[in-house]
Amino acid sequence: MSTPAVPRGSGREAITRAARESFAERGYHGSSIRDIAARAGLSLSALYHWHSSKQELLTALIEESTEEYFRRCDEALRHAGDDPAARLGALVRATVEYRVSRQVESTIAASEWRNLDPADRERLDGLRAAATRLWADLIEDGVARGAFGCEHPGDARRAVVASCNAIAQWYDADRGLAVPDLVDRYTAIALRVVDCR
Amino acid sequence: MSTPAVPRGSGREAITRAARESFAERGYHGSSIRDIAARAGLSLSALYHWHSSKQELLTALIEESTEEYFRRCDEALRHAGDDPAARLGALVRATVEYRVSRQVESTIAASEWRNLDPADRERLDGLRAAATRLWADLIEDGVARGAFGCEHPGDARRAVVASCNAIAQWYDADRGLAVPDLVDRYTAIALRVVDCR
Repeated sequence: MSTPAVPRGSGREAITRAARESFAERGYHGSSIRDIAARAGLSLSALYHWHSSKQELLTALIEESTEEYFRRCDEALRHAGDDPAARLGALVRATVEYRVSRQVESTIAASEWRNLDPADRERLDGLRAAATRLWADLIEDGVARGAFGCEHPGDARRAVVASCNAIAQWYDADRGLAVPDLVDRYTAIALRVVDCR
Repeated sequence: MSTPAVPRGSGREAITRAARESFAERGYHGSSIRDIAARAGLSLSALYHWHSSKQELLTALIEESTEEYFRRCDEALRHAGDDPAARLGALVRATVEYRVSRQVESTIAASEWRNLDPADRERLDGLRAAATRLWADLIEDGVARGAFGCEHPGDARRAVVASCNAIAQWYDADRGLAVPDLVDRYTAIALRVVDCR
């Protein structure tokens, strides 16, 4: 592709946007650092001023979005009070809103996680495990307190998370349901999955 | 990698296995036809005897696995009788068993579908839509007959399918639950999602 005359946004931001576009369209292995620079409207040497490699761009993108997801979940729970159903609803809301607002990053993280360097992958596995722990603790707590009747909290958690995560793959912001309605529907589904009494 | 002295399996089968390995490890864009031939223990010209391109290998792999999934679902429903809960259970069983037995193909189809050529993608979208239709008809029928209480059958369908599909990503055949138990758990979850009376 041809290099635009004017950089799209300045420096780091333009590179981040270009990397996201390229990884989403062509995948990590199908993207070249040269193509990312061209999409950002920058020379290769200007790109190297901010980022040293394609691997670093992938790690930064996945790390930022995983951290942002965890931060939103953690914050939602801090304002959700003590009731297990309300807490589950808060986590569903945070997840649905995140998947809708960050559809591209969600899809890249899902398919390119395997392409992270081992050390980065281990660190980010830890961050992802922390988000999983928020769901697990909440559901196990609801079961222990008799609010949720599901016999297998781990499978209930996986089912709820998979349902919410899949929204990134099919949601169409132009023609889809309004986000608050989507949140209501997925909250109702999650409450049924955990067998909320 | 070095070329093994003896082809692993004969011809077409060895190529299919090699392509599956390569796409799973490195993705479509990260795989080369040369690497696939080497993994299969074949010369490049022997490979071209069976397949004309990397694109053709990807299409064949996704087409075979999508057809096999549809065939299993269709067959499960033909033996499931008329009861909506039994029919939902049959489709969950077919899907869970498929995802466990074809984990690699399931993951490749999910992440490489975007890399199919437009004409192939359109054809395979049609096959995938036929499988979606089996789920949709079944759930809508259950709602119409008062067996399922869910208000939004489309979202119930997406949630159930996403839960079952995600099994391909996390199931560990060596340490995981036995498949019949997994089927029982996901059937119970699906029945709750559709609000089975």
